[in-house]
Amino acid sequence: MATDYLYHQLESWLQEGIQKQRWRLGERLPSIRTLCQEHGLSRSTVQHALQRLEAQGLLEARPKAGYFVRFQPKALEIPQSRVQIDEPQLVTVSDLLLDIMGRSAAFDLLPDLNVGDLPPGVVALNRSIGRSLRRQRGDDYQYYDEPAGNLRLREQLALHNSRRGWIVSPDELCITSGCQHALFLALMATCEKGDVVAVESPGFYGALQLLEQLELKVVEVPTSVESGIDTDSLEEALKNWKIKACIVSPAFGTPSGVLMPDSSRKRILELAEQYDLAIIEDDIYGDTAFGAVPDPLKAIDTESRVILCSSFSKCMSRDLRLGWISGARWHSRIIRLKLVTQLASSRYLQQGVADYMEEGGFATHLRKLRKELRERRDCLIAHLHDWPCDLRVNLPQGGLSVWVELPESVDTLGAYTKALEHNVVITPGPLFSVSGQFQNYLRISFEHPWSPKRVNALNRLPEILLSDR
Amino acid sequence: MATDYLYHQLESWLQEGIQKQRWRLGERLPSIRTLCQEHGLSRSTVQHALQRLEAQGLLEARPKAGYFVRFQPKALEIPQSRVQIDEPQLVTVSDLLLDIMGRSAAFDLLPDLNVGDLPPGVVALNRSIGRSLRRQRGDDYQYYDEPAGNLRLREQLALHNSRRGWIVSPDELCITSGCQHALFLALMATCEKGDVVAVESPGFYGALQLLEQLELKVVEVPTSVESGIDTDSLEEALKNWKIKACIVSPAFGTPSGVLMPDSSRKRILELAEQYDLAIIEDDIYGDTAFGAVPDPLKAIDTESRVILCSSFSKCMSRDLRLGWISGARWHSRIIRLKLVTQLASSRYLQQGVADYMEEGGFATHLRKLRKELRERRDCLIAHLHDWPCDLRVNLPQGGLSVWVELPESVDTLGAYTKALEHNVVITPGPLFSVSGQFQNYLRISFEHPWSPKRVNALNRLPEILLSDR
Repeated sequence: MATDYLYHQLESWLQEGIQKQRWRLGERLPSIRTLCQEHGLSRSTVQHALQRLEAQGLLEARPKAGYFVRFQPKALEIPQSRVQIDEPQLVTVSDLLLDIMGRSAAFDLLPDLNVGDLPPGVVALNRSIGRSLRRQRGDDYQYYDEPAGNLRLREQLALHNSRRGWIVSPDELCITSGCQHALFLALMATCEKGDVVAVESPGFYGALQLLEQLELKVVEVPTSVESGIDTDSLEEALKNWKIKACIVSPAFGTPSGVLMPDSSRKRILELAEQYDLAIIEDDIYGDTAFGAVPDPLKAIDTESRVILCSSFSKCMSRDLRLGWISGARWHSRIIRLKLVTQLASSRYLQQGVADYMEEGGFATHLRKLRKELRERRDCLIAHLHDWPCDLRVNLPQGGLSVWVELPESVDTLGAYTKALEHNVVITPGPLFSVSGQFQNYLRISFEHPWSPKRVNALNRLPEILLSDR
Repeated sequence: MATDYLYHQLESWLQEGIQKQRWRLGERLPSIRTLCQEHGLSRSTVQHALQRLEAQGLLEARPKAGYFVRFQPKALEIPQSRVQIDEPQLVTVSDLLLDIMGRSAAFDLLPDLNVGDLPPGVVALNRSIGRSLRRQRGDDYQYYDEPAGNLRLREQLALHNSRRGWIVSPDELCITSGCQHALFLALMATCEKGDVVAVESPGFYGALQLLEQLELKVVEVPTSVESGIDTDSLEEALKNWKIKACIVSPAFGTPSGVLMPDSSRKRILELAEQYDLAIIEDDIYGDTAFGAVPDPLKAIDTESRVILCSSFSKCMSRDLRLGWISGARWHSRIIRLKLVTQLASSRYLQQGVADYMEEGGFATHLRKLRKELRERRDCLIAHLHDWPCDLRVNLPQGGLSVWVELPESVDTLGAYTKALEHNVVITPGPLFSVSGQFQNYLRISFEHPWSPKRVNALNRLPEILLSDR
C-alpha cells in the first residue's frame, strides 16, 4: 500500500468512528502509539491523518494530552437567532420569571445540591482572606476604605487585565460589590428614567431587571450564537430612536456564549462615536475562556466610551461579592455614585484577594477551572446527542452554559413548574428577552461536575419537556 | 451642729468644687468612705448631700462605681439651632466638601493615625468570620445568597431589636451593604427624581449627598440638640410643599446627638399619616446609647410608614459593610431593588456575624463600648472647658461626637485647610447643611481614645480656629 493510501485509510476509519460516536464530543482518541500498534502504521502516517482531521475541525490537539473530538454531529445545528426589532418599551418582569431567576441564577438541573468540598483554589482564597482578617488593626476597622477601593487590589486587577491585552491603570478601576452592582452604577451614570438602552437578545436577564427598576426603556437587538450582536440591526435602531447606552457581553455572554468577532467590535465602537452612545461591556465571563483569553472590547476603546464591568463571581466565588468597573469618561461620576450608595468595600476582603492574586493563586485557579469547564461542556453536549428530539445547540468557547433550541412546539416556560415537581430546575428561554420570545429555548449550565445525580436530572428533561406538546 | 447643717455644709463644699472644676465633668468624686473620714461625717449625712446634688443634676450615680460629675459650667451652653425654612432646592455638594467628607468620615483631629490593636470584641468578631470562611462548602461559594440576606443573621437582628422594644420578625428585615446603602434603597423605593425630601438641619451629610446624586430636592427642617427635629416647622413645610419622605435620626443622630422626645415621635408619625409621607429612620447610633437603649421610632409605627435603616459600622466595625433595612409598606420593592443592584450579600460574612451574635459577643462588646464612649465624651467636654473662647456644646447621651458652637466670627470651613497644614483634620459645620449655615460650628468626635497625640491636636485647635478672625 502506498503511504498516501495508508494515512487516508486511517483518516476515513477515524472519521466514521466520530460520525457514529464511537468517540464522542470531548473524548480523547486512542494515543498515537496505540494507533500505530493497532493499525501497523508508522508514527508519521498516524500524525498526518490526525493533523488532517484537526484541519477539518473534527479534532482538537491539546499539548501533552492528545487529540480530542470536537466534531458536532449534523443533528446539532446551532440555534437560530431572532430577526425583528421592536419599539423601545418599558420592562416588566413577571413574578414567575422573578421566581425562576431567584432559583436558577447559579445552578440549573438540581436545586439545593450539596456540592461537597471546595476546589483547592477557593480554599486558598479563603485562607488568604482569613489571614487578612487576622492582620486587621485599629485603623482598618475604624475607617471606611477609599471609595475607588483598595489600591493593591486595583493594581493586581490592572496587572491581570494587562496580560489579557488591556493596558489599564489602577486609577481607571473602581471596586464594586459584584458585576451586577457595576452594571447598575454604569446605567445610573449614563441614563435617566425613560431613556432607551439597547441590549442583546437573547441577553442577560439581570440587565433586563435593572432596566425595569430604573424605569429605562429597552430595545432588543438580535444576537446570534455565531457572531454576537447584529451591528446592522443596532445601527437601524440607532437611526430610529435616541439610544443612550448599549449593554453587550463580547466574551461568552449568557445565554449566547458567543465571542464577538473583531469586525463587530470595531463597528460597535464606530456606532458609539457616531451616535453618542455609552457601551456597557459585561466582561464577567471573559476569564473563563477555554482557549486563548480574548481581549475585552475595552482594549480598543480609543474614545473613552466603553464602561467595563466584571467580577469574581463566575470564575472564583459568588460569595465574595467583589467586582470592578472601569468607567471611561463617566469614571469620576461612577466613583461618586459608589461612595454615596454604599460608602466603601471591605478593606480586609480586598486585601485578602489582592494577596491571593499576588501569590499567583488566581492564575493557577483559572488554568484549572478552564480545563474543567471545557470538559464539562463536552460531556453535556455528548449527553444532548442522545436526546430523542431534534435540537440545535451552540458550542461556546467560554462561559458556563449552552443555549439549546428545541422543536417549536416545546414551551420551556410552561414546563418549568412541571420540572420543579420532578425536582429539576430549568432556565427557560423567555427569561432572556422581554418579548416572550425563545419559548422553545433552554439554557443549560455546565458549571458543575456531571455527577450521576445531575446526569440523571438531565436525562429526565426530554420526557418532561416533550410530554405536554 | 445640727445634722441639717452638716449635710448642707458638705453640699456647698462639693458644689463649689464642681463650679471651680476641682472635679471636672465625668470625673468621679471621692468615695463616700473618704468623704466620711475627711469631713468627720456619718455615712447617711454624706449620702444625703450626694443625693441632693444628684437631684440638682450636678452628679450622676453609677451603680457600684460611685458619683460622677455631670455638671456643665455655664460657659458651655448648648448650641443654638436654626429657625428659618428655605424653599425646596436641589443639592450641590462642592468638591471641597466632598474632600472633607472623604477625610473625616470616620475620624477627626488626626488623620492616618495608627490606632494600634483591635478591641477584644472586634478580634472575636473577626475570628467568628474566619471560622465561617473555613466552614464554607461547595454550595456556599457557588450560589448567591437569598436577596433578603441570611436568615440566621436576620433572626439574630430581630432578637437584638426585640430587646430594644421593637418586636420585629426576620421577614421584615433585609440585609444591606451598610446603613448608607439602606438609606439609598429607602430613597430609591419612595422617591423619584425631582421629589422633595425633608431632612434634619443640621443633619447627616451622607443623606445630602444621596439626595444630590438621586436629583431629589431638599427641605431642611430646624433641629435642635435638645428636642430634635422641630415638628411644627416640619408641618409648615408639609403644608407648603408636596414632600415625599423625611429622613430623621431619632437616636443620637449626627451632628445634633439628640434623642427625639416621645411627643415629637408621636407627632411625626401623625404628620406622616396626614401628609402621606415615608419616614426614613437612620438608627445607626441607636446601639451606642450610654444609658438605657431607646426604642427606635419604628417600634410605634402602626401605619407601616417608617423605614428603619442601620448597620454595624458605628458600634462594631466600619469594615464589615453590613447593615439592614426594614422597609415597612415598601419592603418588597426594597428587596427587589437590592437584588437587582447587587444580587446578594456574602453568605460567609453573614454567617460569621450571626455566630458572633448567637454567642453573645455583640452584646458584650456593646456594654464595653458604651462605657468607653461615655468616658471619652466626658474627657472631651472637660478639655473643651479650657478653650480660651466662649463656646456652646451639647452633652449627647449616645453617638460618637459633640456639636460645638463657636463665636460667630469663626469660620470653620475656612480653617479646614489651615488645620490640615497642622496635620489636624476637622469636620466643619457647613457640611451638615446645604445652605452654608453653621459656619461657626464644629463636630468633634470622641470615638477614639484620648491619646496624648489626640489631646495635643485638640488643644491646638483654638489657636487655628481663632487666629484668622
